[in-house]
Amino acid sequence: SLSKWALQGYRCIWFKVNIKDAFCVPILAQKGFNFHHARDDFVMMYKWLPGDSMPNLPPSCHTNLGVGAMVFNDKDDLLAVSEKHYEYPHWKLPGGYVERGEDIIDAAVREVKEETGVDAKFESLVTFRHTHNMMFENSDIYVILMMKAITDKLTPSLREVNRCQWMKVEDYITHPHVHQFNRFIVETALEYKKRNLKLNIQKRTVRWTANYARDTNFLLVEEFK
Amino acid sequence: SLSKWALQGYRCIWFKVNIKDAFCVPILAQKGFNFHHARDDFVMMYKWLPGDSMPNLPPSCHTNLGVGAMVFNDKDDLLAVSEKHYEYPHWKLPGGYVERGEDIIDAAVREVKEETGVDAKFESLVTFRHTHNMMFENSDIYVILMMKAITDKLTPSLREVNRCQWMKVEDYITHPHVHQFNRFIVETALEYKKRNLKLNIQKRTVRWTANYARDTNFLLVEEFK
Repeated sequence: SLSKWALQGYRCIWFKVNIKDAFCVPILAQKGFNFHHARDDFVMMYKWLPGDSMPNLPPSCHTNLGVGAMVFNDKDDLLAVSEKHYEYPHWKLPGGYVERGEDIIDAAVREVKEETGVDAKFESLVTFRHTHNMMFENSDIYVILMMKAITDKLTPSLREVNRCQWMKVEDYITHPHVHQFNRFIVETALEYKKRNLKLNIQKRTVRWTANYARDTNFLLVEEFK
Repeated sequence: SLSKWALQGYRCIWFKVNIKDAFCVPILAQKGFNFHHARDDFVMMYKWLPGDSMPNLPPSCHTNLGVGAMVFNDKDDLLAVSEKHYEYPHWKLPGGYVERGEDIIDAAVREVKEETGVDAKFESLVTFRHTHNMMFENSDIYVILMMKAITDKLTPSLREVNRCQWMKVEDYITHPHVHQFNRFIVETALEYKKRNLKLNIQKRTVRWTANYARDTNFLLVEEFK
């Protein structure tokens, strides 16, 4: 069928192979198909048909998205965690990977709750950092949010967390087990607040065509009320 | 070997199968391996060994990273492009996907040059937007940068661009073929500039442990000089 499809003007053929049908993979590879992306139970394979041009396809994803939370309680103490499976002593901010289809703010709320038991709400974005050559040669974007605790009772995750505690900000930023980058961003967040700079994440439905609209979260610099 | 590895305390076995060895894929699938991720010429498969716990693995990437550029020349005119392969008339900002391992600013410089022939340099981040349910059920993060043109001669890409031109900002934001979201972010960018808010992207080498350092780009709100 491949030569027929090429004659009909098709430019790319896609096959989504379920892992139950894995016997198809070597057959498609034999026919000149390449891999594009995969998840647990399938691999997507493609073949670019025009012999006179290079494939013009979106790249497969190479960015992991994570989120960290700088959570303050009513006394302006900061929530610090010490995670399991670390080789060195540390006090870091709760956080983790954003799940497929999840909003950044929702991921931060979920991670804080899972790791520490604390309910928190979004206040402001502090920064994001973009780093290459991480696992599997992918890059990371790690977004750090300032949040306000709604509850402050600590019930650390047995699976992920060794200890968590509310720390005075001065103690956190001078603690020898706090990484200098975390120290820097906590200071930066407090300075933004003093300057009344709220890096908000707004949600809006953006309509691109008559039949195509998407909820979109975007950064907007505003003021704290 | 699988039961032996499990007894030895290994938690996860990985196989990177080159497409030339695609015959291995159905054999591994038969042994209970799943897919994790794939690129053109390989698929990564894994098997989680402990029978009493769920896999605790980083998810495969589900975020596409793109960049758009709001390029102003010396007269403060804005660079607008009309791309090929669009179904409706539009004036958009040049931009495209960030490549694996590429910095956001470098990607913007490259896309502006490729699409329009213009050399430009970074001035400030304007916003990013995060949208779900895009191609292959992945999400997009699209970062929009304000840039300053170093050259202003237009040599549009024959492959990607129908037309490009320098437009008066007032003409751009009132043009019927400019999307309301683009109108909004151009106005927002000009307002930030008036407030002297520069959303800088700084690059710094961050050392995490004695043997582990990474160049990291991060957002920092500063002032225009």
